[in-house]
Amino acid sequence: MSLPAAFHDIAKRVNNWGRWGSEDEIGTLNLITDEVVRRAAAEVRTGLRVPLALPLRHDGVQTGLIPGRVNPLHAMTQINQEIFGPGAVACSDDAVTMGLQAATHWDALTHVSHSGLLYNGRPAATITPHTGAEFSGIDKARHIVSRGVLLDVARALGTDRLDGAHAVTPEDLDAAEELAGTRVRAGDIVLVRTGQVQVYLAGKREAYGHPSPGLSIRTPEWFHARDVAAVANDTLTFEIFPPEIEDLWLPVHALHLVEMGMLQGQNWNLEKLSTACGEVGRYSFLLSAMPEPFVGATGTPVAPVALL
Amino acid sequence: MSLPAAFHDIAKRVNNWGRWGSEDEIGTLNLITDEVVRRAAAEVRTGLRVPLALPLRHDGVQTGLIPGRVNPLHAMTQINQEIFGPGAVACSDDAVTMGLQAATHWDALTHVSHSGLLYNGRPAATITPHTGAEFSGIDKARHIVSRGVLLDVARALGTDRLDGAHAVTPEDLDAAEELAGTRVRAGDIVLVRTGQVQVYLAGKREAYGHPSPGLSIRTPEWFHARDVAAVANDTLTFEIFPPEIEDLWLPVHALHLVEMGMLQGQNWNLEKLSTACGEVGRYSFLLSAMPEPFVGATGTPVAPVALL
Amino acid sequence: MSLPAAFHDIAKRVNNWGRWGSEDEIGTLNLITDEVVRRAAAEVRTGLRVPLALPLRHDGVQTGLIPGRVNPLHAMTQINQEIFGPGAVACSDDAVTMGLQAATHWDALTHVSHSGLLYNGRPAATITPHTGAEFSGIDKARHIVSRGVLLDVARALGTDRLDGAHAVTPEDLDAAEELAGTRVRAGDIVLVRTGQVQVYLAGKREAYGHPSPGLSIRTPEWFHARDVAAVANDTLTFEIFPPEIEDLWLPVHALHLVEMGMLQGQNWNLEKLSTACGEVGRYSFLLSAMPEPFVGATGTPVAPVALL
Amino acid sequence: MSLPAAFHDIAKRVNNWGRWGSEDEIGTLNLITDEVVRRAAAEVRTGLRVPLALPLRHDGVQTGLIPGRVNPLHAMTQINQEIFGPGAVACSDDAVTMGLQAATHWDALTHVSHSGLLYNGRPAATITPHTGAEFSGIDKARHIVSRGVLLDVARALGTDRLDGAHAVTPEDLDAAEELAGTRVRAGDIVLVRTGQVQVYLAGKREAYGHPSPGLSIRTPEWFHARDVAAVANDTLTFEIFPPEIEDLWLPVHALHLVEMGMLQGQNWNLEKLSTACGEVGRYSFLLSAMPEPFVGATGTPVAPVALL
Repeated sequence: MSLPAAFHDIAKRVNNWGRWGSEDEIGTLNLITDEVVRRAAAEVRTGLRVPLALPLRHDGVQTGLIPGRVNPLHAMTQINQEIFGPGAVACSDDAVTMGLQAATHWDALTHVSHSGLLYNGRPAATITPHTGAEFSGIDKARHIVSRGVLLDVARALGTDRLDGAHAVTPEDLDAAEELAGTRVRAGDIVLVRTGQVQVYLAGKREAYGHPSPGLSIRTPEWFHARDVAAVANDTLTFEIFPPEIEDLWLPVHALHLVEMGMLQGQNWNLEKLSTACGEVGRYSFLLSAMPEPFVGATGTPVAPVALL
Repeated sequence: MSLPAAFHDIAKRVNNWGRWGSEDEIGTLNLITDEVVRRAAAEVRTGLRVPLALPLRHDGVQTGLIPGRVNPLHAMTQINQEIFGPGAVACSDDAVTMGLQAATHWDALTHVSHSGLLYNGRPAATITPHTGAEFSGIDKARHIVSRGVLLDVARALGTDRLDGAHAVTPEDLDAAEELAGTRVRAGDIVLVRTGQVQVYLAGKREAYGHPSPGLSIRTPEWFHARDVAAVANDTLTFEIFPPEIEDLWLPVHALHLVEMGMLQGQNWNLEKLSTACGEVGRYSFLLSAMPEPFVGATGTPVAPVALL
Repeated sequence: MSLPAAFHDIAKRVNNWGRWGSEDEIGTLNLITDEVVRRAAAEVRTGLRVPLALPLRHDGVQTGLIPGRVNPLHAMTQINQEIFGPGAVACSDDAVTMGLQAATHWDALTHVSHSGLLYNGRPAATITPHTGAEFSGIDKARHIVSRGVLLDVARALGTDRLDGAHAVTPEDLDAAEELAGTRVRAGDIVLVRTGQVQVYLAGKREAYGHPSPGLSIRTPEWFHARDVAAVANDTLTFEIFPPEIEDLWLPVHALHLVEMGMLQGQNWNLEKLSTACGEVGRYSFLLSAMPEPFVGATGTPVAPVALL
Repeated sequence: MSLPAAFHDIAKRVNNWGRWGSEDEIGTLNLITDEVVRRAAAEVRTGLRVPLALPLRHDGVQTGLIPGRVNPLHAMTQINQEIFGPGAVACSDDAVTMGLQAATHWDALTHVSHSGLLYNGRPAATITPHTGAEFSGIDKARHIVSRGVLLDVARALGTDRLDGAHAVTPEDLDAAEELAGTRVRAGDIVLVRTGQVQVYLAGKREAYGHPSPGLSIRTPEWFHARDVAAVANDTLTFEIFPPEIEDLWLPVHALHLVEMGMLQGQNWNLEKLSTACGEVGRYSFLLSAMPEPFVGATGTPVAPVALL
């Protein structure tokens, strides 16, 4: 089995290898210039802050399908411990074990490979158990703050939540962009709302995962044309799942991460942001979504915040 | 043993219990209003982004002194795994175990208690192994974005790094504020630079911890007078260590977290921020420092970013 | 709510507090004397070794019901790493995170408390997050080797697997003892086979947990009368679940661990042992079931072996 | 760099590949026959049980040198939690994270490779992050019970503890065997006492690791000649460290695990066993040292017990 021509045709059109030099490790994050950030800051008008992470808890979005992708196991290692003697100030401490892709997260560019290669043509074998990803680990992506634009596809299509079989198309993105009233431009971070996270919020953890609406294989070209810096949405699988083309699994992952060098985020809770944007009548904002700098990691939990 | 009168006198003067109602769980974070955030966004002039977290790695700042406070153990759980069959897109995943107070972090208000009580007079026993902190867990502190002000005490005192025995005093903060050229005001997040993190960056992990410069017991009143929302610095212990007053351990922790209900951060790398502020000639900025929302946790790693 | 008279009546009859002194931390393990071990060794006649632990894997018997009781998360931290240079001997290492009661395990005497008390009348509050169980941690139970007797209740009752609603009674134990052809005596470790583990082995992880056959509240008196050293079986809950008496949860746990000071084991795979005993026509053997000595822990994975 | 002729010469002489068939995954464990076990059981004369594992604790033998090899991080996940309502039986649970080679442990045959190969000529690449060791994982080594023989080299050489520069030679083993008064035979598990673990027990954790006495590169031939089933000792590195031959690291590991297919164990506490053997005047016993069956793992903690 190898990837079909349908994939390779798109890959050729969106490929960014070498665009920022052969040494580059951060891909489209290069598009977030100081100028972009300055203009993004100008989006803050109400001072409203909307956090976009799901709470980190043992009954998170993972249901055991992927071996190492475990929900956070939080444990208190000290509780009101008078470590300096009786009557002294007492300390509480905790520790956690979790999969780095288990909750609201960023995929690093190294999260997937295809044909033995990673972004910018680096060998997949540069990821090792000893040091993780030698190139393009999530610790290299240190400055993820830019203008965010909510493309509220569900609302644009007049529904609260897209159907599990709905592949989000470029036309859907166009419609949501029109609703947003702003044109997506170079360096923007796009948040695509399907409404699917409501299934998890309603306690239906198994059903949240799949079938799931998500991005169509046709959307990477849309993002490429606009020179988007990163894309996140409110689903577990990010792209439509099961996939549109039989036996072509995770094509959007491969196009975004490997070909374009564009970070993507999953399990973002965009419900309150949708409400807020609807109320203020604007769908753009300053978005801060800094990765935890795990050295050599292929993903990270993230606690994004939108400032409207 | 109980806490001395010297402590209780200050405690009385800075206490915020009931100030935001008996149900409040976030203390001085209430001071970050929409208006504060709007004005903070106006601080973004160059578009420069300065990340403030130390890399998360196995040889982090912990040296084994505190049982559960372990450096990040990062492990790849999949490497280029063709989970959908040979030739398919291949996935890499990872997992981590770490102490929540092990790296660049926020202490939740529940990180310490004294005399059996937590912030707002809640019983220390409301922290349990089962659910962690019932009140004031770090997941309640969801919106930590505000104006940041760097009080570069080391620079203000004409040195690169304060001596291990240097307790940062209110007078030191005044000097740094004068250098900063802006008055600290209600809702600001103050970053106090001692330069101590240079010791860790130079590979001297044991020496970084102590003796360490840090805040004097006299500084909480300064922060209280200015109605600061949160304080972070570049040391392991936050306050001067060993302490100024014999057998009075962690008094600043108890005053900030329990009495004032003010979050504090440790192990922040302020070196590049110091350079940047010096170069642009401004020490205020938009600071985004969102906690990872671990439910019931008494601390969290954080990846702060300053936008100048 | 408090425990009913039905419980307290039995508790009074089986209580062993003080029997081995007020300092004792191991309860009925005191019954395993050197003499008992010598006679146990004489049970080894064929040299056959039957391991009784389920494999430790991510899809183990836990299904997420109990927050911290997580299946083993196994991760390679090094794979063929040439840590001493290219061409040198290469090393592979791994790490694991798991609940100590997640797999085939022993409960320590401190695994449950009732009415604020642990075995031998110690306060439940002697278990702390900082040090775990101050008394009767699993590390105190260092010598669990004795004669084992398989009470194959399923076979004695002419079935392969007891029904989910079957509470194993003293009469059932009598029948199995008769089948075994040996009288259970002081210091023996009794393994009670229900056949329930077959459900897990067939891949029905949810169904394995409950409804589940298991020990009746009437059995602790049987074990007490015979002065058994420990009891293990092939279920998740150990005792019949849901319980026989409405709203009386885990009474057998409380009677065994707290009142009698008798260790109990769960999720033991007794299928091959049943076959072997049937073939050799003997149900007694030397049993080695050494706890991993986690200091202060209230349970431990165990890899028991029967030598026939 | 490649392994020197000195290594390959010995490798040729001790190689067991194919000896138990090309499918074999357990090597010299094949030598433990039912007959061996029956005779081993006959060694139990006093009924004395001597546990050989070091306590599992956060300040264990690891000092941070090897990234993933972390001491046990034990955390209570529930303490006296009344999960079924107030007044009910209360539960305590715990979880652990640890390196599988961090404490008293067995190395699986797959713990090291050389020249790209594992035991029985299998490719080193059969170890993957996804499934661990496809062949010869520790879960395959399910029946480690046999006759144990303590070769008390320290005592045989008239000292309490061998010097850090002492490489244990075949001649040393001969002397210890003479002291033991029994000839090591096929299927035996040999425990070699250097006394080095005393350094750890005295709290000198750094000094315990190295310089350390340990097995000489000349000993694998001795074990091979006697057809030993497995070898363990009381050091961190197992073999003399730093090594006898410059730049030839871990040759004994490679000879035992890869060439012979013989399991080896480290950090075993042989002090009390030495005392007991001296007192009863016998150095052979029944040894039970069952691995925890972590699927695909390259090592496991073990809680061995000697029955004299």
